[in-house]
Amino acid sequence: MSIKKKNLIELPLYEDNRGSLVVIEGEDIIPFSIKRVFIVNANVGEIRGEHAHKKCNQFMVCASGKIEVICSDGVTDIKYLLDSPSHGLHVPPGIWAKEQYLTNDAVLTVLCDRHYEKDDYINDYEEFLKFQRGNK
Amino acid sequence: MSIKKKNLIELPLYEDNRGSLVVIEGEDIIPFSIKRVFIVNANVGEIRGEHAHKKCNQFMVCASGKIEVICSDGVTDIKYLLDSPSHGLHVPPGIWAKEQYLTNDAVLTVLCDRHYEKDDYINDYEEFLKFQRGNK
Repeated sequence: MSIKKKNLIELPLYEDNRGSLVVIEGEDIIPFSIKRVFIVNANVGEIRGEHAHKKCNQFMVCASGKIEVICSDGVTDIKYLLDSPSHGLHVPPGIWAKEQYLTNDAVLTVLCDRHYEKDDYINDYEEFLKFQRGNK
Repeated sequence: MSIKKKNLIELPLYEDNRGSLVVIEGEDIIPFSIKRVFIVNANVGEIRGEHAHKKCNQFMVCASGKIEVICSDGVTDIKYLLDSPSHGLHVPPGIWAKEQYLTNDAVLTVLCDRHYEKDDYINDYEEFLKFQRGNK
């Protein structure tokens, strides 16, 4: 799997004077069914993630504030600035992702196509590179 | 359907010095599969919602800030203060829900067991009461 600019998906956004609403329909707006959702609040400057998944697809939406996501396929890095819920980032399996929280109000909502499986995580970067080589 | 205090569900919460993470597993932590997710940002004091669903289950998590949710089955109102992502509120079909955004950083994440269907919404309170009477 590789990570491309097309992994940034524009979401249906409904704005009025009360605020905004974005909708993510599983198997439609995003290319998988939603089995699990997690919500991360972190302090400004914190770095989270720093792992890859063997099988799990993730879709990341910055619900509030600003978050930078760096995705790597082991060869190329792409940096994404998520500063609005209007766009979400599809992180396919086999991609190393690192999230930096740029503001104190930053909230990351992540939708996954698999339930939690401890063995699906690759937490070591050297192991990730080996995994990538094995898939070529 | 009636709304009860037990509709407030404690979520697995992982906290450390970097921040916090809550997980919502579909068909496990919440009693339905997740077909759709929406994220609402609103200004302080704004009231949203004010409708019921005929079939759709919703699960509301206040991802940031504070939100008050008032749920009504047409007879009894219950007021919930969502001031942490550590608890989410299951709003079953046939319940009128109104959300008031109490802080400017308030973000509501809502998980649904159905895709968007215009006809599933009851936007008029009198019509809601008729719907409730018809279901008794």
